[in-house]
Amino acid sequence: MTVRIAIDCMGGDHGPRVTVPAALAFAAAHRDVEMILVGIESEIRDELRKRRAATRAGIVVRGATEVVAMDEAPASALRGKRNSSMRVSIDMIKAGEADCSVSAGNTGALMAMARFVLKTAPGIERPAIASTLPTLRGQTLMLDLGANVNCTAEHLLQFAVMGTALSGALYRNDRPSVGLLNIGEEDMKGNDVVKEAAELLKASGLNFHGNVEGDDIYKGTTDVIVCDGFVGNVALKTSEGLARMLASYLREEFTRTPFTRVLALFAMPVLNGFKRRVDPRRYNGASLLGLRGIVVKSHGSADEFSFGQAISRAYEEARGNLTDVIAARIEALQVGAST
Amino acid sequence: MTVRIAIDCMGGDHGPRVTVPAALAFAAAHRDVEMILVGIESEIRDELRKRRAATRAGIVVRGATEVVAMDEAPASALRGKRNSSMRVSIDMIKAGEADCSVSAGNTGALMAMARFVLKTAPGIERPAIASTLPTLRGQTLMLDLGANVNCTAEHLLQFAVMGTALSGALYRNDRPSVGLLNIGEEDMKGNDVVKEAAELLKASGLNFHGNVEGDDIYKGTTDVIVCDGFVGNVALKTSEGLARMLASYLREEFTRTPFTRVLALFAMPVLNGFKRRVDPRRYNGASLLGLRGIVVKSHGSADEFSFGQAISRAYEEARGNLTDVIAARIEALQVGAST
Repeated sequence: MTVRIAIDCMGGDHGPRVTVPAALAFAAAHRDVEMILVGIESEIRDELRKRRAATRAGIVVRGATEVVAMDEAPASALRGKRNSSMRVSIDMIKAGEADCSVSAGNTGALMAMARFVLKTAPGIERPAIASTLPTLRGQTLMLDLGANVNCTAEHLLQFAVMGTALSGALYRNDRPSVGLLNIGEEDMKGNDVVKEAAELLKASGLNFHGNVEGDDIYKGTTDVIVCDGFVGNVALKTSEGLARMLASYLREEFTRTPFTRVLALFAMPVLNGFKRRVDPRRYNGASLLGLRGIVVKSHGSADEFSFGQAISRAYEEARGNLTDVIAARIEALQVGAST
Repeated sequence: MTVRIAIDCMGGDHGPRVTVPAALAFAAAHRDVEMILVGIESEIRDELRKRRAATRAGIVVRGATEVVAMDEAPASALRGKRNSSMRVSIDMIKAGEADCSVSAGNTGALMAMARFVLKTAPGIERPAIASTLPTLRGQTLMLDLGANVNCTAEHLLQFAVMGTALSGALYRNDRPSVGLLNIGEEDMKGNDVVKEAAELLKASGLNFHGNVEGDDIYKGTTDVIVCDGFVGNVALKTSEGLARMLASYLREEFTRTPFTRVLALFAMPVLNGFKRRVDPRRYNGASLLGLRGIVVKSHGSADEFSFGQAISRAYEEARGNLTDVIAARIEALQVGAST
């Protein structure tokens, strides 16, 4: 089976300069891939020529005349940019011309277009955004990271089902442990929604671990962590802010005196080893789950390596038939609940 | 004015071994302090003797026969431990025999006892827990960190008032900027409670900055950040988990080979400088705000230095008349709202 990946080449801070070479590199490493480069045709063809890939097999260009701006309001992009690279990429999934799509564009616009064009999967009330985070034991999948700010217990249960399916597609882990993000491990902790979600999760047949706390995210206590989008977004951005502050402090300490600067030179391999392990580029790519189609959002500032990670995520989700797996698991849940 | 500080000597992982020397050191450095050491009298007197402080001026021992266990249910501690060091310390505030109290004991029990004995301040619906966090620019005060899992917009407004008053007492900053933790800076972002809280804050006369996101915490965008206790607790614990993971990775990289181990020896002063800057012990002490009395909670694992920071916090709050300042500001808010 060939996986057809529609790349929104215009999205992100760097556009075709990053998206095109990343797509070429990924296609070169995977024989079962067809890359559909969507965007302003002249710009894409220029990039291809520069890289001597104007007529490479497995690479297709699909023209789109508009670009969604990074700061454009989702509603305006949805109404006004019907021939944008972002929209055309998603339309291609809907039309059966692509198996998945990757964009480094505006998250709000991407979610709005994906919901509008693809619709939510059968039985799914709310799509969610899921990302992989590094942990002391490996990695964990966390969702929702900001698509839903008011969640019910049923939404959290559906997030757990979707996260479980995603773990199967990305990590071949079909029975991942699922933690419910809370402010204590005991059953009595938390707000009403979380308490009710715990009851639903216990009865769901999923591999439910129980409540987890904020520090369990990076301990790697469970393979999947579910939470509402407000809490998930705050946790993620708080982490980004803390990591940036610590990196800045470390840099300051190593550049304080001539002696520490020399030391930094010697310590470079060690510091680089450290940096590599926590490199956020390795974890780039957030999955928009619960739609009738696979859409992956890359960070806007992604470089070539980083954008390649997001492409890889979409590829694995398509190969794992994630949309069908989620639909089947949600249906099973509903059959289970009604009997 | 002498500040009378009731120390729950039995609380925390280490008890009198840590609390007594920390109290002695603080008293030695402050002439306007009377330390009331509350707990099992024989154990406290033993510690005092060991440190040749059996009859030191400004140090008083107040016997209490019971100890609240770190894992004891708040309700059971409240009902059953009326002669515990924790309870007696709080009773002394109520009786006017102490100006503030510090405990490294069980948070839930401490909050339950403080609410039951002291009651909430006039006009305050919910007490909150506030802590100081390090930022790129200095520090920020954040609340609520876990006392309230279901907050209304009015609660968030009251947290902002209390945080503003606390900033005055701790940092002599009477008009701190206040940020509302949200998942985007735009007004339209967030759930209904947050949107309504933003409107209340705009009309409050406080120095309201607007919405802030998770990464603004460590950027130090505002002096005070308000959020509901669920979100605040997750953000705080996520930070603890991430910091621990990064420290563990850094340690691993510096102990990987004989060469990196030698390098670590040379880099020790630099790494220690880094550690000092982010040392959580410096920020120990969470304020229980909105009660008719000043109560500070120390981390359970606090060492002598760290417990001393919590004592210092209680001392500054008492000197700044925090309870009265909060009551006056809440009253002003209500007068403003009703006219």
